[in-house]
Amino acid sequence: MSHRIINPSSVAAPAGPYSQAISSSGQGTWLHIAGQIGVDAQGQLAPGFEAQARQAWANLVAVLAAADMTVADLVKVTTFLVDRSHLPSLGPVRSSFLGQARPASTLLIVQALAHPDWLFEVEAVAFKPACA
Amino acid sequence: MSHRIINPSSVAAPAGPYSQAISSSGQGTWLHIAGQIGVDAQGQLAPGFEAQARQAWANLVAVLAAADMTVADLVKVTTFLVDRSHLPSLGPVRSSFLGQARPASTLLIVQALAHPDWLFEVEAVAFKPACA
Amino acid sequence: MSHRIINPSSVAAPAGPYSQAISSSGQGTWLHIAGQIGVDAQGQLAPGFEAQARQAWANLVAVLAAADMTVADLVKVTTFLVDRSHLPSLGPVRSSFLGQARPASTLLIVQALAHPDWLFEVEAVAFKPACA
Repeated sequence: MSHRIINPSSVAAPAGPYSQAISSSGQGTWLHIAGQIGVDAQGQLAPGFEAQARQAWANLVAVLAAADMTVADLVKVTTFLVDRSHLPSLGPVRSSFLGQARPASTLLIVQALAHPDWLFEVEAVAFKPACA
Repeated sequence: MSHRIINPSSVAAPAGPYSQAISSSGQGTWLHIAGQIGVDAQGQLAPGFEAQARQAWANLVAVLAAADMTVADLVKVTTFLVDRSHLPSLGPVRSSFLGQARPASTLLIVQALAHPDWLFEVEAVAFKPACA
Repeated sequence: MSHRIINPSSVAAPAGPYSQAISSSGQGTWLHIAGQIGVDAQGQLAPGFEAQARQAWANLVAVLAAADMTVADLVKVTTFLVDRSHLPSLGPVRSSFLGQARPASTLLIVQALAHPDWLFEVEAVAFKPACA
């Protein structure tokens, strides 16, 4: 097996759809995904936090698909918000995209993203075994 | 050898227990560790910055152990603080956990973490060679 | 081929010299590079944002070189600024170092870096195939 979820009982259980760690081994393909934001293929920014988060996650899934991967191949997701009050509306969006996937995750509130209108950004690392 | 420390003389020596880079090669297992915070296995948040940093590092080591790894396998550590005035008390904690290990490291002061009471978070990537 | 640029048409084209993702496969060497800042080999901090960004990128290239790599081997670059008004002067610096390289990238504005005089930091992950 090449993806293994690490959730030791000596550490509090993850408080969301993630794992404390993912171990990956064997031959395969690594994918490093740039920070995705709430802009669609036509360059249009989605209105408001929740719509931006949904679009950014849709972009992430589209990038995975272009590399012949799915959310099941994600090993690490890093999420950036600019306002903690947006956090409650992130959960449902994230869960709807992740399904049963439980990548290791970090979430940060940063001062700002590259553009003042951007409210959400998500980057990721994925690994797909050569012969699963 | 599969872990190699990179500290070129053309770059200032690391100002702490880290390396400018770690190179990793050969067969082995990668571990992507989620951001660890100062909460113990019972869900209790440690009081104050230093205790939180100590608990978060203890969690990181516990996650490594659950994957049959140690701090010697760390290749990258990323540390997040919410207040730079906490920085002086981090050094001893970090050193006590790292021992002789010198992973590549980045330290950032962010606006906030996911919960307003969290003062410290640390995530990491580790690699353990298949046959060291 | 071991480095592959992923820029699906379903996601807006990158708004700069980066890729939406880089996929990497096969035997090779991974390099995790610590956050580089605008300090030269003598420990002198460059004056002002643009000079710091130039020095930090020069350090990054020196670290790559010490591992027998170049910017062509970069798969992910993460850039940290402390003031978004510095962003316009970053583009030319970044382009001059990257040349034709297009690593996956994320750029964040954080509250601060480890030292109050540091205005720029850049970290990276690189992969060099064993036999390209």
